[in-house]
Amino acid sequence: MLYSKLFGKTVREAPSEAAMASYKLLYQAGYIRESTAGRYFFLPLGMKVQQKIIKIVKEEMDQAGGQEMVAPVLHPLELWKETNRTNTAGFELMRITDRRGAEFALGGTAEEMFVDIIRKFQISYKELPINIYQFSSKFRDEMRARGGLLRVREFIMKDAYSFDINADEFKKEYENMRQTYTRIFKRLGLDTVVVESDGGYIGGEYCHEFVVDSPIGETNYLTIDDGSYNAHEDVAIFKHKNVNIEDKEKTFKITSQPEWVKTMEDNKKHYKLDASHFLKNVVYRNRVTKEIIIAVIRGDLDVNKTKLENTLKATGQLEAATEEDLEKIGTKRGYVHSWGHKGAKYIGDNSLTSVKNFIGGQKEDATDSINVNYGRDFTCELLADIALAKEGDQTKDGKKLVMKKGIEVGNIFQLGYHYTKLMKDAVFTDSDGAEKPFYMGCYGIGIGRTMATIVEKYHDERGIAWPKVVAPYQVHLIALGKDEASYQKAYSIYQRLTTNDKIEVLYDDRRNVSPGAKFADCDLIGCPVRLVISPKTGEKIEYKERSAKDIRLITMEELISLL
Amino acid sequence: MLYSKLFGKTVREAPSEAAMASYKLLYQAGYIRESTAGRYFFLPLGMKVQQKIIKIVKEEMDQAGGQEMVAPVLHPLELWKETNRTNTAGFELMRITDRRGAEFALGGTAEEMFVDIIRKFQISYKELPINIYQFSSKFRDEMRARGGLLRVREFIMKDAYSFDINADEFKKEYENMRQTYTRIFKRLGLDTVVVESDGGYIGGEYCHEFVVDSPIGETNYLTIDDGSYNAHEDVAIFKHKNVNIEDKEKTFKITSQPEWVKTMEDNKKHYKLDASHFLKNVVYRNRVTKEIIIAVIRGDLDVNKTKLENTLKATGQLEAATEEDLEKIGTKRGYVHSWGHKGAKYIGDNSLTSVKNFIGGQKEDATDSINVNYGRDFTCELLADIALAKEGDQTKDGKKLVMKKGIEVGNIFQLGYHYTKLMKDAVFTDSDGAEKPFYMGCYGIGIGRTMATIVEKYHDERGIAWPKVVAPYQVHLIALGKDEASYQKAYSIYQRLTTNDKIEVLYDDRRNVSPGAKFADCDLIGCPVRLVISPKTGEKIEYKERSAKDIRLITMEELISLL
Repeated sequence: MLYSKLFGKTVREAPSEAAMASYKLLYQAGYIRESTAGRYFFLPLGMKVQQKIIKIVKEEMDQAGGQEMVAPVLHPLELWKETNRTNTAGFELMRITDRRGAEFALGGTAEEMFVDIIRKFQISYKELPINIYQFSSKFRDEMRARGGLLRVREFIMKDAYSFDINADEFKKEYENMRQTYTRIFKRLGLDTVVVESDGGYIGGEYCHEFVVDSPIGETNYLTIDDGSYNAHEDVAIFKHKNVNIEDKEKTFKITSQPEWVKTMEDNKKHYKLDASHFLKNVVYRNRVTKEIIIAVIRGDLDVNKTKLENTLKATGQLEAATEEDLEKIGTKRGYVHSWGHKGAKYIGDNSLTSVKNFIGGQKEDATDSINVNYGRDFTCELLADIALAKEGDQTKDGKKLVMKKGIEVGNIFQLGYHYTKLMKDAVFTDSDGAEKPFYMGCYGIGIGRTMATIVEKYHDERGIAWPKVVAPYQVHLIALGKDEASYQKAYSIYQRLTTNDKIEVLYDDRRNVSPGAKFADCDLIGCPVRLVISPKTGEKIEYKERSAKDIRLITMEELISLL
Repeated sequence: MLYSKLFGKTVREAPSEAAMASYKLLYQAGYIRESTAGRYFFLPLGMKVQQKIIKIVKEEMDQAGGQEMVAPVLHPLELWKETNRTNTAGFELMRITDRRGAEFALGGTAEEMFVDIIRKFQISYKELPINIYQFSSKFRDEMRARGGLLRVREFIMKDAYSFDINADEFKKEYENMRQTYTRIFKRLGLDTVVVESDGGYIGGEYCHEFVVDSPIGETNYLTIDDGSYNAHEDVAIFKHKNVNIEDKEKTFKITSQPEWVKTMEDNKKHYKLDASHFLKNVVYRNRVTKEIIIAVIRGDLDVNKTKLENTLKATGQLEAATEEDLEKIGTKRGYVHSWGHKGAKYIGDNSLTSVKNFIGGQKEDATDSINVNYGRDFTCELLADIALAKEGDQTKDGKKLVMKKGIEVGNIFQLGYHYTKLMKDAVFTDSDGAEKPFYMGCYGIGIGRTMATIVEKYHDERGIAWPKVVAPYQVHLIALGKDEASYQKAYSIYQRLTTNDKIEVLYDDRRNVSPGAKFADCDLIGCPVRLVISPKTGEKIEYKERSAKDIRLITMEELISLL
C-alpha cells in the first residue's frame, strides 16, 4: 500500500476523552474513528488488524472442531421471550419492530438463535459434540461507553455454542475451549489468567473469564500467590474471621445514643469497637418485580450485589433503592432496621453468625439497640454468602487473597440445560432412541477489545508496536529526501517485496513530508520492521525493528532472509 | 471435514414456498435455513461458499484500488435526516432508539456513513480517488420477502463509495468499477449484462445494474439484437409511433355513448379504432406530500411509475390512489377526466402529442368527448416521458426492443454531488487551495443473491454443481460398503489430501448410509469432484466430476495431478 493513497492517515491530536493508550494511539495512527459514542468505524489499517485477529481465532476454533456459520443480526424477540431473557437482559437489549409489527432483538449474544437453528435438524448422539460459532456484530445498550474499543455498544464477537450429550461430555468440550482460548490469546501475544466469574444474564452454572492483567481493566479479580485460585470479585469466596463467636450472648437492649453518632466511623469511636461488631443494612429494589430487599451484613464487610442477585435468582434486576422505596417500607436513609420493615425482604450474609452481641439494627434518632444476636433477636428470610471479597482476605484454606485488575478478552460458560429446557424441541436422539435435551456451553471473544488490549500491552511513548501476527503490514518502508531516485529505488523494493515475496509493505512515498514526520508516523503506526531508503543509504537498505534500537544497513538479500 | 460431524446435513423435503431451484437446493443440501421470513442462517457449508465469494470480490476490489474498512451497523439517524433519506427510503428503512433516546437507522446502504467518515479527515486532491468499501449486514424492511436468498430483509452487501475531484475523474473510477464488476462476476461463473437503471432512493444521476439473465429474475430489461442497448424497463426509452399526426384537428364534441362502453376493449369495439386513439388516465397519491397525481397517456401505452416519480422528484413516494383520494377530487374509478379535477396535478406523457383527435378524457355515464386535441382542448402541468417500454417497441434509431428477465447481482451509481452538497464539510482541498465537495459514486454487490444466482445457473435435477472457485469443498470423498478397510483407506486419502496437499475434502464417512443415499447427497451438495472408495475400487480410486458422466479408476498420483 502506498501511504500517500491510504485512507485514514495519522493525526497529531487525539480526542480529549482518549485517556487510554489504546484509544489514543488507535485514533492518532488512523485505525479507528468513533461514529457515535461506543460505535466505531474500523479504517483500512484497523480492518487489517481485525482480520488478522479473526483469522487466528478461526484457525484455532476450526482446529478445535468448531464449525463457522452465521445467524441473522435481528433475532426474533419471541425466542428471547422463550428464555425470559427480555427481562434479565432487558436493560441492555435493543429491540426493533418492522413495518409489519414483527419484533426483533439486536442481540448481545445469540444462545437462542443457535438453539433455534440446531432444533431445526434431527441430531443423533453420534454427531455430538457440535460446536458452531460465528463472527458477528453484537449490541449492548450500555448506559456509558468508555472511549475506545474497551467498552462499546456495538462490536464484533466470536461467539461459539457447544451441544453435548451430557455434563461429562461437556466437560471435555469446556476444557477443549479453555485450552483453545489460552492458545488463541498466546498467539496474539496476550497472557491470560482464567478467572472464575459470574454468568450474568447468560445464565448457566459456572463460567470463566480470560483476563489480561492491566491497570486500566474493568475486571477486578482475587488471586493467590501460586495462581491456583483466580476469581472475579463478583464471585470470590473468602473465609470470614470469627469475631467473638465464643462470647456469651448478653441481654438485648435499646440504649440511648448521643446525637452525633450517625456513621459507622462515629459508631466505632463511640463504642470503641471495630466495624465487625456492628450491623449494616443495604437496601435494593428489584426493577422487574418491584420488591424491596434489605441485605444485612457485618459492618466490616460490603454487600456483593452479584452474589445477592444470584441468591435471589434476580440476575441484573437489582438497583439501589430510592427515597420513595424507603418511604414505602416506613423508613428513610440512615435509619433502616435489620428487622421489622413490613414489605421488605431480608437477606442476611453468612457473617451474621460470626459475631455475638451486635450493635445496631434498630436505629432511631437518639437510640440504638445493643447485644443483638442473630437467631435470638432477629432472623432473615435467608442467610447466604453475599459478601464482597477484598484484598487481604483469606481463602477458605487460609491463603492471602490479592486483588488484581485486568481486561476481560474472552469468556466461557457452562450453560447446562438452561436454554435447552426452556426452548422446546432442543433435543437429540440418544443411543437408546430417547430424545434428550442438549447440554450446552458458550464461548465468546470480543475482537475489538482484544485489539485494544494488544495495544495496551504493545506500545511505548512513540506509538504502537504490534506483534508480527497482527500488524497491518510487516514492513513500513520510507523513502526520504528530495532526490527522486530514492523514491524510485524504494518503489522497486516495494514492488519486489509485495509481488515476489508476498510481504505486506506500507510504503511512505510522500514527497513533501519531513523525515522526522515520517519516522514519527512509522513509530505511531507500529509495523514490526522499518526500512529506509535515502541518498545516504546508497546501494543498501536501512533496517530497524520497531521495538529495537539497533539500526543497520543491509543488502536486499539479507533483507529477504530477515523477513 | 468428516460429513458425519458436519452441522447442517441434507434433508429430502424442502419448504413448500421454495419454488426456485436456488432456495430448494440450498435448503436441501444444508447451506441455509430461514430464521424469520427474509432472514437466513448460513450453515457451515453456506458459510464456506459465502467466504469464497467474498474473497474473490475483495481480491478484485483491492486490485482496483479499493480499501476495505467497516462502519457501524447502526447509523445515527441524524445523518439520514441531513440527506432527507428518512423520507425517500422511509418505507423500507428500519429505525431503532436506544435507552438514552438516540435514534439510529439500520441502513440498506451507507452513503451517509461513508461521507461522514471521510469528512472527519483533511483530504487533499493528491489522495484522490479514494474508493473505500465494506462487507456488512444491510437491512431492507421489505413488505414481501421471496423464499430464498433473492429478495431478503437482511443480507451481506459489499458496498463501495468513491470520492473524486470532479465528474471527469469520476468517469474513470466508474469505468474501473464497471470492469471490476464484470471481472468479479466472470470469475464467479456469471455472465452479466450491464443495464441502465434507475437510482431509486440512492439518488444520483445515472446508474447501471449487473444482471444475470434468468427466467426467475425480477429485473425486466429491454435490449436489442447486437446488445449495444440494455435498459431496465423503469428507464428504457423508446420511440412513440406517430399515430395520425398529419390529420386535421376536428371540432371537440361531447357525444353520447351506449352504456355498455366502459373499458378500453369496449371503446375499441365501439369506435372501431385501436387503443392508441384513446386517452388513458392513471391516478396516484404521494404518500409523503399527500398530493393527487393524474398521469395522462395514450391508450396503447402504460405509465411507468419510476419515470413519473423521477419527473416529480418524488422517488419511492407514489402509490395507487384510493377511493377516498378519487372522491376528494370529485370523481370515482372509471370516470377520471384528463382535465379539470380540482386538487389534482396533471402530468402528461410525451405521446399525447402523437395523436390527433383523441377519444375520451371526460367520460360520464352516457357521454364521452371526441376530437380531443392536446394543447387546444386540454394541457397538463408538464409533458414528459412517463411511458413504459414494451417488447416490440423500437429504440430512437428504430431498432427492435426485446424484453429479457434477469437477476440483479450488483449495481453501480454515479452519485455526483448529491450527498456531498447535502452534508456539510464533505470537502477536499484542491490544488488551488480551495475546498471543494467530493464527486461521488457507489457500488454494491449482494453476496447472498450472488450465491443464489450461481446456483440458479449451476444446477441440474440432482442438485447443485458449483464452479470450482466457490465450491465449499473441492472434493467429496465417499467410502462405501460394510468393509471397514474401505473407510480406513478413504480416511488415509482424506488425511493425505487435506494435510499434504491442502485440498479441501468433505469425507462422507457414515457407516450406516446406503451407497444410493451417499451418491444423492454428493450430487445435491455439488462439489466439483467425487471420489469413491469401496471394496470394488481395489488399489485405485473412483473419480468423477460433478457435471461429467465419465467415471474412471485412477491412482493416487493421477488424482493429485488432476486436482
